[in-house]
Amino acid sequence: MTTTIDIGFLIYPGVTQLDATGPAQILSRVPGARIHMAWKDTKPVDTDAGFSINPTISLDDCPDLDVICVPGGVGQLPLMGDQDVLAFLKRQGERANYVTSVCSGALLLGAAGLLRGYKSGCHWAFREMLPTFGAIPVAERIVKDRNRISGGGVTAGIDFGLALAAELADEDTAKEIQLFVEYDPVPPFDSGTPEKAGPELEAKVRATFTGANGG
Amino acid sequence: MTTTIDIGFLIYPGVTQLDATGPAQILSRVPGARIHMAWKDTKPVDTDAGFSINPTISLDDCPDLDVICVPGGVGQLPLMGDQDVLAFLKRQGERANYVTSVCSGALLLGAAGLLRGYKSGCHWAFREMLPTFGAIPVAERIVKDRNRISGGGVTAGIDFGLALAAELADEDTAKEIQLFVEYDPVPPFDSGTPEKAGPELEAKVRATFTGANGG
Repeated sequence: MTTTIDIGFLIYPGVTQLDATGPAQILSRVPGARIHMAWKDTKPVDTDAGFSINPTISLDDCPDLDVICVPGGVGQLPLMGDQDVLAFLKRQGERANYVTSVCSGALLLGAAGLLRGYKSGCHWAFREMLPTFGAIPVAERIVKDRNRISGGGVTAGIDFGLALAAELADEDTAKEIQLFVEYDPVPPFDSGTPEKAGPELEAKVRATFTGANGG
Repeated sequence: MTTTIDIGFLIYPGVTQLDATGPAQILSRVPGARIHMAWKDTKPVDTDAGFSINPTISLDDCPDLDVICVPGGVGQLPLMGDQDVLAFLKRQGERANYVTSVCSGALLLGAAGLLRGYKSGCHWAFREMLPTFGAIPVAERIVKDRNRISGGGVTAGIDFGLALAAELADEDTAKEIQLFVEYDPVPPFDSGTPEKAGPELEAKVRATFTGANGG
């Protein structure tokens, strides 16, 4: 018999979809995992990438989660003061075994009061906002502090997912999933951080966050 | 004025969703890109990871694509002899500027007759099937042969997406996208290929492909 592990992602209009779909791919292969995509209702949710995904459950109907995960995206900005969303995160975050985020999703966790005194990762462009919520920013792809686990920007969700898979199951299971998803990365370019990309590209990416495509 | 670039993913029930959502995240940020998720109808498509995504368009209504991309997944097996799907791929593949695949999606491109005499990448567990379709298997994460570009298994779609972004726009644009998605991977484990994972984990992953979770 395998114990069910309820893993829920908060999705919302304008979510950076890979922040959720990357770790969901990894975590869906943890034995017993049940993936939930939760939002206010179960109508299609428009992502940032030109297509929509469907919530599997509403916030009200969502069972107690073993893992709550908040992905990033500019769509979270209107949620920073949304009492329904913040109450959902608080309720789940207070009982979940793991309270997690990917990318700028850490800010919404912070707004829900769940990161006070905790170290957290975040997308590089938003990391400096973490202290606003009492969190301690860490410039790493996977940050663990007690039961808070967070990933850096977007693709860090895959590294994060594998680390979390090892926590939920064991290292061998995580390695088996890594082999399944053939995660032996060989990026064709080397500009994945501001330091590597240089100030010109950094300024260009920062400028996009004032538009509609932010992450 | 920016030229529109129509980039279409064939999605289908049982698709390994990260094969499509990974490159879609990258490619959606190429200037002018319009992402299409195409299937027989526009009802929700169940993925392999516990949630569904919505086609943006039906195969019949899909415009002529500049890029056609076929993601992998066990759900493609029933499609290998599906005349509607094969006709769609042939029609699009004969005019597209780039004919592409991620993971085991190469097999379906092959079944549509689009890889005869071409080198192709593929998920490691399915690579040896490529010669059945006249294709030449290459054990790399990104494989380019004339206008055929293919990625290896699942997460290789991100590397593939960046390489394709550089083709569609230029290297600086691809690097800017890499910085946006913070793609500076630091996998927590090192078992992303059969050689690195060893025979025991390889056998375990191979065994899952006889079940319902294949990639």
